[in-house]
Amino acid sequence: MSGKYDVAIVGGGVIGGSIAFQLAKRNARVIVLEKERIANEASSAAAGMLGAQSEFSNDYPLLSNEAYPCQKCSSTPCFLPLALKSREMIVSLAEELKELTGIDIGLVQKGILKIALTEEEREALQRNNEFWQRIGQPAQWLSSEEVADFEPNVTKNLRGALYLPNDGQVSAPDLSHAFANASLVYGAEWREFTEVFDITKEGTSYRLHTNNGVVHAGAVVVAAGTWSARLLEKTGISLSMYPVKGECVLVKVEKPLIQATIFAKNGCYIVPKRGNRLLIGATSTPHTFDKKVTVEGMMSLLERAQQLLPDIRAAEWERAWAGIRPQTGDGVPYIGEHPHYPNIWIATGHYRNGILLSPITGIIVADLVGGKGSNEFDLAPFSLTRHQATYKL
Amino acid sequence: MSGKYDVAIVGGGVIGGSIAFQLAKRNARVIVLEKERIANEASSAAAGMLGAQSEFSNDYPLLSNEAYPCQKCSSTPCFLPLALKSREMIVSLAEELKELTGIDIGLVQKGILKIALTEEEREALQRNNEFWQRIGQPAQWLSSEEVADFEPNVTKNLRGALYLPNDGQVSAPDLSHAFANASLVYGAEWREFTEVFDITKEGTSYRLHTNNGVVHAGAVVVAAGTWSARLLEKTGISLSMYPVKGECVLVKVEKPLIQATIFAKNGCYIVPKRGNRLLIGATSTPHTFDKKVTVEGMMSLLERAQQLLPDIRAAEWERAWAGIRPQTGDGVPYIGEHPHYPNIWIATGHYRNGILLSPITGIIVADLVGGKGSNEFDLAPFSLTRHQATYKL
Amino acid sequence: MSGKYDVAIVGGGVIGGSIAFQLAKRNARVIVLEKERIANEASSAAAGMLGAQSEFSNDYPLLSNEAYPCQKCSSTPCFLPLALKSREMIVSLAEELKELTGIDIGLVQKGILKIALTEEEREALQRNNEFWQRIGQPAQWLSSEEVADFEPNVTKNLRGALYLPNDGQVSAPDLSHAFANASLVYGAEWREFTEVFDITKEGTSYRLHTNNGVVHAGAVVVAAGTWSARLLEKTGISLSMYPVKGECVLVKVEKPLIQATIFAKNGCYIVPKRGNRLLIGATSTPHTFDKKVTVEGMMSLLERAQQLLPDIRAAEWERAWAGIRPQTGDGVPYIGEHPHYPNIWIATGHYRNGILLSPITGIIVADLVGGKGSNEFDLAPFSLTRHQATYKL
Amino acid sequence: MSGKYDVAIVGGGVIGGSIAFQLAKRNARVIVLEKERIANEASSAAAGMLGAQSEFSNDYPLLSNEAYPCQKCSSTPCFLPLALKSREMIVSLAEELKELTGIDIGLVQKGILKIALTEEEREALQRNNEFWQRIGQPAQWLSSEEVADFEPNVTKNLRGALYLPNDGQVSAPDLSHAFANASLVYGAEWREFTEVFDITKEGTSYRLHTNNGVVHAGAVVVAAGTWSARLLEKTGISLSMYPVKGECVLVKVEKPLIQATIFAKNGCYIVPKRGNRLLIGATSTPHTFDKKVTVEGMMSLLERAQQLLPDIRAAEWERAWAGIRPQTGDGVPYIGEHPHYPNIWIATGHYRNGILLSPITGIIVADLVGGKGSNEFDLAPFSLTRHQATYKL
Repeated sequence: MSGKYDVAIVGGGVIGGSIAFQLAKRNARVIVLEKERIANEASSAAAGMLGAQSEFSNDYPLLSNEAYPCQKCSSTPCFLPLALKSREMIVSLAEELKELTGIDIGLVQKGILKIALTEEEREALQRNNEFWQRIGQPAQWLSSEEVADFEPNVTKNLRGALYLPNDGQVSAPDLSHAFANASLVYGAEWREFTEVFDITKEGTSYRLHTNNGVVHAGAVVVAAGTWSARLLEKTGISLSMYPVKGECVLVKVEKPLIQATIFAKNGCYIVPKRGNRLLIGATSTPHTFDKKVTVEGMMSLLERAQQLLPDIRAAEWERAWAGIRPQTGDGVPYIGEHPHYPNIWIATGHYRNGILLSPITGIIVADLVGGKGSNEFDLAPFSLTRHQATYKL
Repeated sequence: MSGKYDVAIVGGGVIGGSIAFQLAKRNARVIVLEKERIANEASSAAAGMLGAQSEFSNDYPLLSNEAYPCQKCSSTPCFLPLALKSREMIVSLAEELKELTGIDIGLVQKGILKIALTEEEREALQRNNEFWQRIGQPAQWLSSEEVADFEPNVTKNLRGALYLPNDGQVSAPDLSHAFANASLVYGAEWREFTEVFDITKEGTSYRLHTNNGVVHAGAVVVAAGTWSARLLEKTGISLSMYPVKGECVLVKVEKPLIQATIFAKNGCYIVPKRGNRLLIGATSTPHTFDKKVTVEGMMSLLERAQQLLPDIRAAEWERAWAGIRPQTGDGVPYIGEHPHYPNIWIATGHYRNGILLSPITGIIVADLVGGKGSNEFDLAPFSLTRHQATYKL
Repeated sequence: MSGKYDVAIVGGGVIGGSIAFQLAKRNARVIVLEKERIANEASSAAAGMLGAQSEFSNDYPLLSNEAYPCQKCSSTPCFLPLALKSREMIVSLAEELKELTGIDIGLVQKGILKIALTEEEREALQRNNEFWQRIGQPAQWLSSEEVADFEPNVTKNLRGALYLPNDGQVSAPDLSHAFANASLVYGAEWREFTEVFDITKEGTSYRLHTNNGVVHAGAVVVAAGTWSARLLEKTGISLSMYPVKGECVLVKVEKPLIQATIFAKNGCYIVPKRGNRLLIGATSTPHTFDKKVTVEGMMSLLERAQQLLPDIRAAEWERAWAGIRPQTGDGVPYIGEHPHYPNIWIATGHYRNGILLSPITGIIVADLVGGKGSNEFDLAPFSLTRHQATYKL
Repeated sequence: MSGKYDVAIVGGGVIGGSIAFQLAKRNARVIVLEKERIANEASSAAAGMLGAQSEFSNDYPLLSNEAYPCQKCSSTPCFLPLALKSREMIVSLAEELKELTGIDIGLVQKGILKIALTEEEREALQRNNEFWQRIGQPAQWLSSEEVADFEPNVTKNLRGALYLPNDGQVSAPDLSHAFANASLVYGAEWREFTEVFDITKEGTSYRLHTNNGVVHAGAVVVAAGTWSARLLEKTGISLSMYPVKGECVLVKVEKPLIQATIFAKNGCYIVPKRGNRLLIGATSTPHTFDKKVTVEGMMSLLERAQQLLPDIRAAEWERAWAGIRPQTGDGVPYIGEHPHYPNIWIATGHYRNGILLSPITGIIVADLVGGKGSNEFDLAPFSLTRHQATYKL
């Protein structure tokens, strides 16, 4: 950690890793400072769904009761374009990362099936389907019979389903480690067990004060998930962020039960993983940093999974874990420059879309740091100053 | 493994360990042959209850439909005397093993509380209570209010409970390892990863054929749990034995919820363990050797535990496991001499009472091997020839 | 396990899995009987080197002191053709398995570098090089300077190295699980925790007696590694086989230290694995089934690795393990029909070449079982009757 | 975390736990705030030696080159009295904690044997022996022959040894958890995953700002190990503290090799633990928070252990870990009141003596918080103001 870096990235999760990879590839001298291990938090805990479409619905808060209405995309959640682009990027990225690091990110492109268990859910999903048809994104309504043909092990007790064929999934820990290792190939440096306490200005550069001494860098990227808010308070801004604990379980079946990811309104999803594993997620407990898996969380996941996929009762239990996801007050990530300090960039608050948005976030932030701006996307909705409340005067 | 041993014990679980300990203490030259690791199977998976009374009830099969009626104890299950004696032995044994090995076996003497959730269960438990009063064993009926006073976190939705104050519990893995290490102190030898394929006669002694060569011994004890039956087939007897898989889960609470072990008719028990852990057991799946924990097993355990102890929902999940317990056709262990070969002794089939019965089984088998017989107990009910069907002519 | 299977395979390791895959793909009704879990033994413990060339040297025992001289390949170890073919197959197999199961077998094709640390080793490796040149297999001698250019982190204290560019490597556990899961896709059934005790004839078919009942099959394949010998004794043959324990350690480096696998005469190899891991193997302890990792084993591995790759001292320790590899008396696997029973086939004794030989063994045995014989290879050297001593009359 | 606590303790290690236990026992309303899990850092990593004498030697820095000379104990390291008292307390504490929590802290009172491998070490140890004789603490010089009698497996290649019979050992994780659970019995509250960012004054009380909201308390104890320094900087003092990583390994032997703890000048010790384990410690790497176990660290530990106890080569490897110990600039812990804020107390910097000193630290801090002061000990050497440099004006 000697000399001066072009960019110091705070946070070694999937977002920090993707940014480090893109910057190092462009020949920036990059250092990543991670308080624990690579992908220690949400990035390893995630289910890895690439739900560019499945995460968005007509009743998505951004459409109706959003405090900061996006002027450009009145009928579209304003980060849908980023999500679609990021999902598209993943195919070539999977190859590139495999080539560079030997790590297979586990990309599966079998779609996500959003199940309607009630009449109300059926109506909502069908409205959602119309939306996708309108904007020209692939989506297909399946009747109960068609669902039974397509995924014969899914419950028969349903009202049809919306199939989103382009929403794939990856292995979240593998993607996170692949970004990190690929950045190493391009010369990035990583420091684990290195916590950044404060950032101070030093002429036109910055000093990052860590438990391992001071790091000097021309630009800083804060991509520390829920932990970003506290660090940024030192720099005079108070982001509206809070942690949301999510519990998951992993089980193993003797033969594949499903091809697509199964997704239900009640917040339950079942993602088929390598080696006949099924990942069942996720509970949502806001405002806690604890990573304890509770009996209650496990029971609710298993009960809901069993409702969707009855044969899961015979599955073999493997393990359970919890992750802490960074949510923002309005549900939209923060991607942009620090309102007070030039060349401090923030990329955090991706909540449950961090894996999905990591490819495009890497490109956008690398563009921003490199002074290129982002011609393709309107980044105003992600700005740190979108609410006055985001920073103290 | 050179020279000739006085006794070769097949099986390094809690029964084999207890026998090895008692024999080595009496200066026998002992070798224990274990196909995997010490206490690899049921002995490490057990909950460790010392249910000398709680395991016996009026409707216990031995009382009514037992094929081999015990003449002595017509109204008493015939291994109750062994169970009571074994439970009594555990206190001094705990001290002895701690002194010899430094291992604390986790003895807790806070009793077992058998909960009546239905009127039918209440009546059965009250009859059971009368039985204990009649034979002079401590037992106390608690009304719902008294249960609420004694164990305030137990469900209020009950019809009273039978409290058996002398039924304690230990840490099953610690007891098993303590026996093994204590036998080492007295000079016993242990060979892990050593499977016995066959036993053949060699004059008045025996040869044990293993994957690590031949062991010579004057006497043999087969204490290999469910795996005993197959080995003994080589010696011309066909024991009526089958495996019963039992799944358990361990959770952690912030503060102790119970003092006593909670035991319900529906086969669920909750045992308070060190460090605010609660061990919840156990499912019962006969005729399988697989040690997979299933989603179904876990869900049934958690649901039943929650019914008994509602606050368990907030507990932290720790882990789940399964063990294979050796059950016999009539539910009574085999303890006795081989019907064809002198000085081959069998001690197996303890099913879910292996931890409880291990102290007395160690003494009885050491007596038998030493030629002392057992004056204190009638061992006829445990004989291998109690049913003609137990051996082929 | 009802009805009758075309083929029952005993052993769920990489060999049994490869055979199950090839047979199921040809529409045979296949069942695999595994005493523990899939790939529980050597298949998961292996380093995964595809050392078709690196495992063979001029002083290879087969050339000089082989009791059963191969008439055809007088100057060539007689299973070299199989090894070369198997190595060639792995590329398309990797794609096929990924497609069918989603499992990436971790194929790396960066070659193996055989280091000469002494003058004697240099001479032996150079003679070996001449052999490869003579038979037209790629091999290249590198001077010390060339080694330093090619692998700058390898010790400078060497006398050159032989580079075998086509000897790649895979992840042994991933290959094993991929075979198993691919066979499931083609309809094979797997039974874990199912031990086969005996095989008896039933007309023109066989009964396999297991701890889970009897399985009926037209043909049987015994691919149970070191455990094969004991089962086959029941069928009247005594294979010359013994277990060889091998210990390995896995460490993690911050940046890749090597591209190729490094291989030294003193029995030490360092294989670069995904995520900047280095797998260091392997010790060799014959005649034990125990899977304990000893302090001595670990120290010898770390010392030898450090001699080859000094920077490994700064690596992070991850884990150590041991596997039990099936060795035969003459070092050649057994692949062929049972000498007494038609349609019982044996495929075992692959020792440290099981991963390498698994693709071709799957094809050969599927051909044999299917009655096609093997036109391509002379299987006489692998015959069970190559030594009279292999079976009792 | 509602209402106001009498005392909020920052840090849930062995020191925080011991203080919580003593305060809760005295009926204080106590809350412990722990950023991760109970005993997450050094408290669980420690070897558990109670080296009240073995940690002190003639050449101990406090005697000669100490910047702050203790006036009272000119010839005695000034925290020796605390160490001796704390060691004495452990016996009754072991019983008290077992009674309250069921946790056996694994107290072994077989002494520590300090080995002289060189003539120089022999002389130093003999001078040390004279010191103990002078102040009346038990110590015994053993010749090489006597060592061979007492511990026959220790290397014969030595120059005698100093035996300190009263220096026992405990299980560090068990002691830490026993303190925590015992404090819970007395009504203390614990909050894991709760990081304290800042402490601010609120009238005569304090507010602790955490990631889970604000805690109000009349008094505060900072016992957060190496992490204390950073928190205290917020309150205007700059403690002279740094982290020292220590790596340990645990191995298992078939039979006990040693009774006493073996301790060598070269910084290596071997502590016999339950179940025939041997704990080998510890390396010393200052100024890092990383908890990676390195190949280099492991090799040095194993080599040194083998030098002391040759038979350890045959031991079974179990695991390795690292802990971060809080060292101070002058090697003396900080125990005392905050120089600026009344009722903020500090207890940290115990370095490698945290387990040993935890009993007495609990008593001293409970006395201080309770306004009793400490009549028995001169606490001046532990004062935060012992060096002017410890706080910024």
